[in-house]
Order: sequence, then structure tokens, then C-alpha cells
Amino acid sequence: MAKVKLGKKLPPMALPVVLVGSNCKGKANFCTIAWMTIVDDEPPMIGLLMGKKRRTKDGMVENGTFSVNIPDTSMVVETDYCGITSGGKKDKSRVFDVFYGELGSAPLISEAPVAVECKLKDIIAFEGTDLVIGDVNEVYVERKCVEKGKCHMGKIDPLLYAMGGGPYYSIGTKVADAFSVGKRFKPK
Amino acid sequence: MAKVKLGKKLPPMALPVVLVGSNCKGKANFCTIAWMTIVDDEPPMIGLLMGKKRRTKDGMVENGTFSVNIPDTSMVVETDYCGITSGGKKDKSRVFDVFYGELGSAPLISEAPVAVECKLKDIIAFEGTDLVIGDVNEVYVERKCVEKGKCHMGKIDPLLYAMGGGPYYSIGTKVADAFSVGKRFKPK
Repeated sequence: MAKVKLGKKLPPMALPVVLVGSNCKGKANFCTIAWMTIVDDEPPMIGLLMGKKRRTKDGMVENGTFSVNIPDTSMVVETDYCGITSGGKKDKSRVFDVFYGELGSAPLISEAPVAVECKLKDIIAFEGTDLVIGDVNEVYVERKCVEKGKCHMGKIDPLLYAMGGGPYYSIGTKVADAFSVGKRFKPK
Repeated sequence: MAKVKLGKKLPPMALPVVLVGSNCKGKANFCTIAWMTIVDDEPPMIGLLMGKKRRTKDGMVENGTFSVNIPDTSMVVETDYCGITSGGKKDKSRVFDVFYGELGSAPLISEAPVAVECKLKDIIAFEGTDLVIGDVNEVYVERKCVEKGKCHMGKIDPLLYAMGGGPYYSIGTKVADAFSVGKRFKPK
């Protein structure tokens, strides 16, 4: 076995990067998150791991709504800026062009190829973090990223974060079809 | 705004693919998961969203341990196979070469560039899924993926899953340094 032990650490993984938005006292605020997951598909729910004190989380609680925006690689400067800059110190309301959907208070990012409007469903407190769960209310996708009714990941061009301090990566090429290529498996 | 509304659906995202392993009645079993996240870094914890009935979850509870393995693109057939095949119907114990770490009962995958040994910490039940939380006990990384003490994501060559039925993608190229490129941001 040619493996190195790293110890009790987080593993090196490539995680999706999202910009989470909420309105804080009437102004849009955004934070950058890579610790996120899907919680369920029916109904569709998204989970975000957030630090205990986050201005964006205050806004989520204030309005009961938030947004999850998927930046593309051209947005890497703004995305990283929202990660390294506290909303308590800098006004991030004008970093992006914002639009609102049906819920009226979740600031969606026009420049993002995918913008998801969510209703706050629950906050589960862990020792050092909170799991924020949102019900998806609407998904907005840039028209050029949709082909024959299906979203094209290469055109979305999402950002990935390499755990352990970066860097950010783009997505590569198609490897194989899912729920399909495994049929070729032959036991040893 | 040139955006299309998709409705109350899961958004198109590129998610990391992992093979989760546990011993079920003495035999290693593996399932493929893309709904996963980091829960905290200190102590390091991983969260997995799993369906209510999963053989691998039974094994986690049986032993109090499990593994999270990051397959590379060369493992796409086996990875997809473990996702489309029920451990109740097929014996998946010989799909991979397995090794064990300090905990003794979490089956780690030799072929995977990254294999994480976990202790089961908690299972939080949602309506349609369970959030399984594990404490990281040890991280094993293939020696060729470590350069000057830092893991190289390009060499790990992880698989990503495009939400909405696939396909699988590889990781692309470096876009920018994290916690750094955002300093170049200039307000509009």
C-alpha cells in the first residue's frame, strides 16, 4: 500500500462553491460556502454548513428566505472576495446585480448561471457549526446553459474548491454516463 | 434577465462522488454517494445524506465505523456499479481491494487515491433521508498525490456527478488561488 497517513484531518476533496445570499436589514449580503449538500429531492432541500456567527445567517432568520447561487469561473474574484470579507465590515450589496423572485426577499445573483431561491426550513445546531436547511422555491438557470430542456454542466462552468486551502478549479470533461457505465462491471 | 425557471427542483450542480463503505455481517459493502458535505473542521467531521434503507448504513450502525473513499476517474465503472447495485442482491465485498486501519472494521479501498476512516458519531433523521455524521479517524492518501506535504487535486483526479442524472465529470484546471484572488476585487 503506497498510502500516506494524514491523521485526523479533513480529506482533500473538490467541493462545489456557492454564494449564499440574504437580506440583512434591507441590504443584500453574500457569503461564500463550499460545505453544502443536497438534503433530499422530494421535496427538494439544500443544506449549508455555516459558522456560528454569520451576517448572512442573521438575514436568513430575519426574512425566512435566502438564495444559493452557483458562480461560474469568470466570477472567481467576486466569489473569493465574498469569502474573505465580512459583511459586518464591508457592504457587499453592490458586488453583484441582484434580482428577486416570488419570495421577494432572497437576493438572487444575475451574473450567476444558476440562482436558487429558498425558504428557510430549519437550523440544526452542532458544536462548532450550524446546518441551515432550505426548501427550494425556484431555480433560475441562464438560458444559454439549457439545451433541449437539460442543463449542461460544461456551460454552467462551476467553480470547485480544493479542500485544504484551495485553489479553485474548473470542471473538466465528461467521463461517463451515470446510472449506466456501471453495467459494464465484470467481477474479478 | 436571460434566465429560465425550472421550478421547485434540485439545481444543476457538480457534486463530489464518494464510495461509502461499511462491514455488514462480516462482509464489506459499498454505496455511491454524491450528497455529502463537511460538517466541521475541528474536530473534522463528514456528513452523508443516505436513503432510509441502506445496507451500508446497517453496517455503520453494526460496527460504529465506516469509510469514505474518493474514487478517481479510472474507477468510474466500479463507482457507478456500486450506485446502481443493491448490496442486498449482490455481494460487493470483492469489487475493490480492501484494507483496514486502526478501527479495524471500516473497509478502506486500496484503489482509491483517498480513503477516510470514520467513527459513526450521529444519525439525524429527516423525513425522507438520514444525515449520517462521522468523526474522521484517519485519512489515507496515495503517495503520488502528495507533493511537498500538500495534496494535489489534479493527481487525485476525483469524479464529479452532475446533478440531474449525470454524467460524471473530471476536475478541470486551476482557476485561481483561494483566500487570495478576491483581494483584486474593485467595487463597481
